[in-house]
Amino acid sequence: MSDYAAPLDDIRFTIDGLVDLDGLTKLEPYGEIDADSVQAVLEEFGRLMAEVWAPTNVTGDTVGSHMEGDGVVTPEGFKEAYQAYADAGWGAVPFEPEYGGGGFPWVVGIAMQEMLNSANMALAMAPLLTQGAIDAILFHGSEEQREVYLKRMVSGEWAGSMNLTEPDAGSDVGALRTRAVRQDDGSYRITGQKIYITFGEHDLTENIVHLVLARTPDAPTGTKGISCFIVPKYLVEEDGSLGERNDVKVVSLEHKMGIKASPTCVLAYGDESDGAVGYLIGEENAGMRYMFTMMNNARLGVGVEGLGLAERSYQQALDYAKERHQGYAPGAARGEKSLIVDHPDVRRNLLTMRSVTEAMRALAYTVAEHIDIAKHASEEADRTEAQELVDLLIPLAKSWCTDEAERVTSIGIQVHGGMGYIEETGAAQHYRDAKITQIYEGTNGIQAMDLVGRKMPMRAGGVFTDQVARMRATVTELEGAGDGLAPIAEELAKAVDATESTGRWLMENGMEDPVVALSAATPFQRLFALTAAGWLMGKQALLASRRLDAGDGDSSFLEEKLITARFFARNVLPEVHGLVGPATSGKDDLMGASF
Amino acid sequence: MSDYAAPLDDIRFTIDGLVDLDGLTKLEPYGEIDADSVQAVLEEFGRLMAEVWAPTNVTGDTVGSHMEGDGVVTPEGFKEAYQAYADAGWGAVPFEPEYGGGGFPWVVGIAMQEMLNSANMALAMAPLLTQGAIDAILFHGSEEQREVYLKRMVSGEWAGSMNLTEPDAGSDVGALRTRAVRQDDGSYRITGQKIYITFGEHDLTENIVHLVLARTPDAPTGTKGISCFIVPKYLVEEDGSLGERNDVKVVSLEHKMGIKASPTCVLAYGDESDGAVGYLIGEENAGMRYMFTMMNNARLGVGVEGLGLAERSYQQALDYAKERHQGYAPGAARGEKSLIVDHPDVRRNLLTMRSVTEAMRALAYTVAEHIDIAKHASEEADRTEAQELVDLLIPLAKSWCTDEAERVTSIGIQVHGGMGYIEETGAAQHYRDAKITQIYEGTNGIQAMDLVGRKMPMRAGGVFTDQVARMRATVTELEGAGDGLAPIAEELAKAVDATESTGRWLMENGMEDPVVALSAATPFQRLFALTAAGWLMGKQALLASRRLDAGDGDSSFLEEKLITARFFARNVLPEVHGLVGPATSGKDDLMGASF
Repeated sequence: MSDYAAPLDDIRFTIDGLVDLDGLTKLEPYGEIDADSVQAVLEEFGRLMAEVWAPTNVTGDTVGSHMEGDGVVTPEGFKEAYQAYADAGWGAVPFEPEYGGGGFPWVVGIAMQEMLNSANMALAMAPLLTQGAIDAILFHGSEEQREVYLKRMVSGEWAGSMNLTEPDAGSDVGALRTRAVRQDDGSYRITGQKIYITFGEHDLTENIVHLVLARTPDAPTGTKGISCFIVPKYLVEEDGSLGERNDVKVVSLEHKMGIKASPTCVLAYGDESDGAVGYLIGEENAGMRYMFTMMNNARLGVGVEGLGLAERSYQQALDYAKERHQGYAPGAARGEKSLIVDHPDVRRNLLTMRSVTEAMRALAYTVAEHIDIAKHASEEADRTEAQELVDLLIPLAKSWCTDEAERVTSIGIQVHGGMGYIEETGAAQHYRDAKITQIYEGTNGIQAMDLVGRKMPMRAGGVFTDQVARMRATVTELEGAGDGLAPIAEELAKAVDATESTGRWLMENGMEDPVVALSAATPFQRLFALTAAGWLMGKQALLASRRLDAGDGDSSFLEEKLITARFFARNVLPEVHGLVGPATSGKDDLMGASF
Repeated sequence: MSDYAAPLDDIRFTIDGLVDLDGLTKLEPYGEIDADSVQAVLEEFGRLMAEVWAPTNVTGDTVGSHMEGDGVVTPEGFKEAYQAYADAGWGAVPFEPEYGGGGFPWVVGIAMQEMLNSANMALAMAPLLTQGAIDAILFHGSEEQREVYLKRMVSGEWAGSMNLTEPDAGSDVGALRTRAVRQDDGSYRITGQKIYITFGEHDLTENIVHLVLARTPDAPTGTKGISCFIVPKYLVEEDGSLGERNDVKVVSLEHKMGIKASPTCVLAYGDESDGAVGYLIGEENAGMRYMFTMMNNARLGVGVEGLGLAERSYQQALDYAKERHQGYAPGAARGEKSLIVDHPDVRRNLLTMRSVTEAMRALAYTVAEHIDIAKHASEEADRTEAQELVDLLIPLAKSWCTDEAERVTSIGIQVHGGMGYIEETGAAQHYRDAKITQIYEGTNGIQAMDLVGRKMPMRAGGVFTDQVARMRATVTELEGAGDGLAPIAEELAKAVDATESTGRWLMENGMEDPVVALSAATPFQRLFALTAAGWLMGKQALLASRRLDAGDGDSSFLEEKLITARFFARNVLPEVHGLVGPATSGKDDLMGASF
């Protein structure tokens, strides 16, 4: 069992400093918001997470969710924790006031997601999947659908779920076979089976609004023939009350390595009838397009799961390192054994965890900031630029934050030594939970293919070039900012060089032969992501340094931000130089091997 | 559930090719052994592992070992699997014929360890810990102790266990407090409690010979006051029959993330009496020295656990990749979806797993070969050189093989996509099992401190310099061996340069300030280990190329060895260039940070 305290100072440094919160509050829909109201929200929310949610995390892992009859029972304390969240209206914070939302920028929602995931990632998936479903109905649903479903989802009264995957349609969504047949009344009857449906059934809310991808009888094959349906667990009467139970049922739950409290359901539609009742969202065959509009949010959300776990794992490792005595650190007087936090190698572990977690936060929040700008900036050029940045950085944020979550939680176990391997300690849970984040919402390999196949070619490489220019501008700023930042400038400059030349090599050679690009995808993705993270840690150093010079803020806090940024530049970022070779080694060995 | 087939061709390539098996059979005690008898042993043993042991692996994980009364019950099938191993005398293979051993070189025992760990790592720990206990009694026990205990341990009739760790004495063994008081009859009474005792109690054998570290009343503090005792579960009568139950009892079992079938015991000595009966091994206060003589074997053994898990994980991922269809690989005709093994990024995953696993095998077997030479070479100079090599490479083999086991088993999950996260698939078990190998027998951080603190300074750096020279000699050979090997020569040359210069920097700066050395320990250890692995993969390429030229062996098998070596050189080895910076970044950020 470990305590969790919301890292409010770190979050504030990132959300109101690295992220231009003032700028965001000048966007049209956020006129009512200011830094103080954001801080108040985060403080209050952090308290709920620390006090109510975090203590349920270990129980959830130990007990797990389980089936009873055709329902799913969540672990003790989950319903109460969810209720406290829903009753206070927390789920509504980042949504439009028109449907009961709080009207806060998305980046505030992302900060809340971080805390949700630190406190209890398995439970967090219930509201976060609901947010995904909200997005779909908000952007593509009819006014009636918004009235009937959306408001009660925003309020947290009802949950949502996303029903995409089928046994033979995982990474290849276009292969799905669930059928939807139109009825005379305009509704559809859905038949088929889906797997890996997170919170596809549970006892947290009285109704669940499933968003189901299915294929109408005459639909084209592949992704162009997919439609999206609302399939409520309970049908809704005209007066808004709950009616009949719809024929969508949980068949079984998966037995997973982690996030055990999050029920991963096999769902059957129409097993006991001529089909579950479904309502088309938007137009037929446009489902995949609708999914794409949610994809950036969903992928960023998974990256933030990695961030949340990393933060929790770091807090726990740090607590342990500050209470566990073992051996003598260099220079320690004989007598009482040293705290392990005094051993250099343990400090390397902790500083790796800390700096990587801060970089994950910087990357995730920056992407969220630009999601806000892309939606709401008054000038189209600003919106376009922000959207390009988001599109380019999403695969990096998703893959890097989740790969680093594996590293950070693994180090978290190492810091505990043998204790880390004992489940009661709780360190192992974070590691087991983290592994799924590298897989779902598109495996990190799929992210890499998205990066080299779709994102690098945007505007004939112009979007990538713009990002290189942005990073170079930070190098220039760092170079002009005094000796303390010189090592950061130097390391970042080398990393940007490596990223630029490797990116160019990739575009030239990958254009001629796409297999070369696909062969390079994973190492290039990591190289680019590390550099982007290093860029934001460079900005962090600039910000801390500027505030120190101005006497603006707690100087010891700011000094630590500088140390962390320098450590990242010298100890984490240099990995890029080991990735240039693999990213430019071509396809011959890969494609020539026999298996 | 996954099948396992002993990779006999790969093992033979390594043990009789990369390792100079002919040379070993010329050593005095191995005169009776030849390559054919080794091959016969490995084939027969591989069959037992594949047919009897491997199928118990998933059950063991699902059920786990549990306590009943004051005993421990192992999962169904374990006793039979152990019995089949013991009855056939497999445990005796690498031990001296004088005590019933088979008289085979240690490297043959290591190849068997690999298969044991692939088949069922949790169960493998019973015979492997017994081997550790055998070592101690063989080298330091009295003739009587060898007669009474050793023979029945070599035969597999009795098991052994190693009892070192206490709650406040983990990495810091010298802090242990278990007491041993000498009696008039020369025996001792042991009182205290130990934790993390692997197979400290079980139902596989009728007796267990515990080796217990304890402190006599007047012993010096720290590691210089530790003595080593035999504490049998059942006392042994003069006629060799089992007598009274000794007062060493299991108190509880740990609930672990992996190796769940391996009972990790808390043991209490003397809870119900004036002490468990123990018999001193060798002299009082020399226990730590005795432990050191076993340490290389034990640490190598843990590295081989990593190897075994990596091989199993690779086999499983490969099987899946060859039966799972998803999407279209580049250039595939529309129609039936492609096998995922045809996707470039999946091929990168598989080739990473394969090349790293081969490198782990090369490294582990090479160290084992030199353990044999160090013991049995006729010339003292040869023995010394071999022992130096072993001492230098042991921390690399332990840490690198186990860190890579984490990477390989993690990729193994990724190849399965969402299925990999479902426990029934079995891929996740390898990942959970692998994590402990980075922790026990000295965490990988402790290995790094051993490397920079004890091993690099050996012969004032001369041992390191010799190893650099060995690696350079391989570069030269590669350079002269034709175009196909040129990329390997080039990459290895760069890696050796990086290792040499970083090693020199470390010795110079670490001599002045040990904290600098300790701060660099972990990245330097990985840098050096990757280069050592790359060196052996270079030798693998030379060997394959020579055999191809000579028409000696299956040419397609040998071509694959070349591809794997080239892939390793271009895609795995370059990581060294990302580690130079971290290893030479000094101590300031590490020691300056506040936690």
